[in-house]
Amino acid sequence: MPSELISELRERLGQVADLNATIALLQWDQEVCMPPKGAQARGRQLATVSAMAHRMFTDERVGALLNELRSGSVVSPDDRVLVEESLRDYERATKLPEVFVERFAEEQSRAYEAWTRSREQDDFAIFRPHLETMFDLLRQKTDYFGYAGSPYNALLDEYERGMTVEQLNPIFADLAKRQSALVSRIALSDTQADGVWMKGEWDANAQWGLTLGILGDMGYDFEAGRQDKSVHPFSTSFDLYDVRVTTRVNPNELFSALTGSMHEGGHALYEQGFREEDRRTPLAQGTSMGMHESQSRMWENMIGRSLPFWERYAPAYQGQFPGRLDNVSTEQMFRAINRVEPSFIRVEADECTYNLHIILRYELETALIEGRMKVSEVPEAWNAKMKQYLGVDVPSDAVGCLQDIHWSHGLVGYFPTYALGNLYAAQLFEAMSASLPDIWGQVEAGNFGGILGWLRTHVHVHGRRKTAPEIVRTSTGSEPSSEPYMRYLTEKYSSLYGLS
Amino acid sequence: MPSELISELRERLGQVADLNATIALLQWDQEVCMPPKGAQARGRQLATVSAMAHRMFTDERVGALLNELRSGSVVSPDDRVLVEESLRDYERATKLPEVFVERFAEEQSRAYEAWTRSREQDDFAIFRPHLETMFDLLRQKTDYFGYAGSPYNALLDEYERGMTVEQLNPIFADLAKRQSALVSRIALSDTQADGVWMKGEWDANAQWGLTLGILGDMGYDFEAGRQDKSVHPFSTSFDLYDVRVTTRVNPNELFSALTGSMHEGGHALYEQGFREEDRRTPLAQGTSMGMHESQSRMWENMIGRSLPFWERYAPAYQGQFPGRLDNVSTEQMFRAINRVEPSFIRVEADECTYNLHIILRYELETALIEGRMKVSEVPEAWNAKMKQYLGVDVPSDAVGCLQDIHWSHGLVGYFPTYALGNLYAAQLFEAMSASLPDIWGQVEAGNFGGILGWLRTHVHVHGRRKTAPEIVRTSTGSEPSSEPYMRYLTEKYSSLYGLS
Repeated sequence: MPSELISELRERLGQVADLNATIALLQWDQEVCMPPKGAQARGRQLATVSAMAHRMFTDERVGALLNELRSGSVVSPDDRVLVEESLRDYERATKLPEVFVERFAEEQSRAYEAWTRSREQDDFAIFRPHLETMFDLLRQKTDYFGYAGSPYNALLDEYERGMTVEQLNPIFADLAKRQSALVSRIALSDTQADGVWMKGEWDANAQWGLTLGILGDMGYDFEAGRQDKSVHPFSTSFDLYDVRVTTRVNPNELFSALTGSMHEGGHALYEQGFREEDRRTPLAQGTSMGMHESQSRMWENMIGRSLPFWERYAPAYQGQFPGRLDNVSTEQMFRAINRVEPSFIRVEADECTYNLHIILRYELETALIEGRMKVSEVPEAWNAKMKQYLGVDVPSDAVGCLQDIHWSHGLVGYFPTYALGNLYAAQLFEAMSASLPDIWGQVEAGNFGGILGWLRTHVHVHGRRKTAPEIVRTSTGSEPSSEPYMRYLTEKYSSLYGLS
Repeated sequence: MPSELISELRERLGQVADLNATIALLQWDQEVCMPPKGAQARGRQLATVSAMAHRMFTDERVGALLNELRSGSVVSPDDRVLVEESLRDYERATKLPEVFVERFAEEQSRAYEAWTRSREQDDFAIFRPHLETMFDLLRQKTDYFGYAGSPYNALLDEYERGMTVEQLNPIFADLAKRQSALVSRIALSDTQADGVWMKGEWDANAQWGLTLGILGDMGYDFEAGRQDKSVHPFSTSFDLYDVRVTTRVNPNELFSALTGSMHEGGHALYEQGFREEDRRTPLAQGTSMGMHESQSRMWENMIGRSLPFWERYAPAYQGQFPGRLDNVSTEQMFRAINRVEPSFIRVEADECTYNLHIILRYELETALIEGRMKVSEVPEAWNAKMKQYLGVDVPSDAVGCLQDIHWSHGLVGYFPTYALGNLYAAQLFEAMSASLPDIWGQVEAGNFGGILGWLRTHVHVHGRRKTAPEIVRTSTGSEPSSEPYMRYLTEKYSSLYGLS
């Protein structure tokens, strides 16, 4: 009986989901609450529960159920997508031999340790042998997974299903050229933002209060979530009705708590928007890292760094810091939060330069995986591309090719999803604006119901039922493209920097 | 090879400990952080992880390892106690048929639901049939576990290993008579404490600050724990180096946050005092509920409600509430926090009346389990005993036999451990005082190092390596007895109430 099989499948997937939620809680607590001496035991707890979750999901019975249900004919359309998505995860999870998974995890620890030292001592030679081993292992991984076209596609597929090097190469090449040109023109502009008034201390409690207020305005449900402080902001989810965010409040920065909070709030709104009936299944997940990132970046950048947003919230800021901002105009705040300044560091990059940091990494990663470059050539290639795209001279590998944690963890194929997030965000936002003609009036009124409603219907509610390209296609009528993002950037920054 | 067997055992027990720690975190988060809508998913997560922990521990391989190691001869003394204690848990965990465990869990839910309604509507008839079923199941449980003497011993053994009805009956009968007489004499005293000055609002942050300061003074390690707020104060542990407490701050009560905090702090100091090498094993647990309770009650009552303690902390209170307590003497605070007042409610009871509430429950529980009383007779028996022991007329079952949650959960055999905690605390404290002649001078100086050191050596470090009676015997030279507690009570309250 298919109905009995599907019940058994749902029960097993539900238990795996419970364990995954538990892992997420162990991690959340580690970042937010755990006392320092608790770290060692927490590591063991995470290892034990993660191993159990993996064993439970890769159980042969799960595979048997999935294959039987796939070949059966009496499965409802709703159940069919559950079976297909679960089978996709199951196949990925079972394709890697256990001995390889262990070897990979060991190298992750070693590489992470070496990367830390390498960066501290600003000496790429320490990290190099580990990075070589890591890329060897990653190439083996692509063989286990299998691929068409570039082997990089096998890695990309884990984070951005269905996206390929063949699709990305022309998009990124075009973006690199155009964003790089835009950045050069901005650098030459006479209209530069003045940020002197931002110097000084900004009360942490006042900043915190602003983030809570704006999260609430965005539609984040505090009955089904909470915001805490952590060193690195993140969002996490234990269930449709328990989706949490964190932010970091730095008294020396006026806006970073807010932008962090809106970014994580964008992720969280996605997770609070899945279907009730998809709870405890793999369908209650963001469909790709890029689509997830589109939600955070739309709220943080396209909304949170817009002039109408500041028309609304400048007075709130002035109210929270009495007397400090009376002589600062809305326009000044808007300009300050959108200052363009090429730098070495990706995580501090503005909207105009951000994708260039990503494309640089993507080009190196693909060359390494495809065997067109050696690990030893990375520093030189890095610095050359920084000069080419951003016009900056990298003073040292520590703030160059050693700045990111990702490669030490074997996270290759992940970076491009950040840039894709920007592209999806702009493309979705254009379509949304067309169907909400008063969108900026609503933002200026602090009314985000229309925006959230549109995102719920077109993006959130689908969970993994649609791929990212399918979502873009059905809600905009076009294939994923970089045009809307370039239009958005050019228009916004031409106006800000007086470019003709 | 025994060394290989013991390694395998330790690894399996370690994973069970990891899962139990994870369950404790899921529960801690539920009480402290979880947003309200997260409750449903949390229930499922707890059910899944609990089932896995149970399955893992009751695995036949664990039983085979334990039995092989027990019969082997080359096991070190340290490992032998691990094997014995684990086997004890294993046998208890496997003695109940799975179908019985499920039946019991179902009845717990039903009984809890009925108890809630029954108490709300002040109608014992709603709860009665469920309580009857619960006691039927509990009698079946005693048969599964087996016992010598009273069947109640089988239940008691779960919470207070090795304690029996035959030992408790004479102790409790004697205590009931003597505490009841003391309470009657206090009621007739002319020297009654004045608490009018305690009325009003007491700033919650100031109270919170005091609890943190005193926990620190007690020796609680905030690098290996933290305090949070929750509706019902509790303590919990995820590891030797992650032991957390909660308290409740009520602005209408001046001392309840402090007494709650010291109580939970006492539990937590026990858990922070186990042996490093016992981590991730069943040995890193309090040896019994009574011994655990002795630690909380010693800190809360014997230390926290002593005159030298208030000589030290009255100025701290005066400092935290500027101007409010200038005319309140240390003596007045000491008297107020030790006011004796017979009431219907156990959780609000003072030191003199507390055990009487416990003994009443114990007498009813044993009569019900031994078949000497019917559930239908409970309300009448309850009220008669309240009159006899405390001299009060119970106005309704809601504040009478329906006040506690315990029976609805099938927690029978648990109440006596609260009274045993008082007895152990007094007995240990007498021995400690003999070896620390300046103990009260140290308390008055806010120096608790000597007390904590003594408790570490005589109680904490043993974990489950010694039973509660063994700890009492080896550290006091006597069998567990009620004499030290009665001496403590009589002396303290004769002085407070001017009894001759």
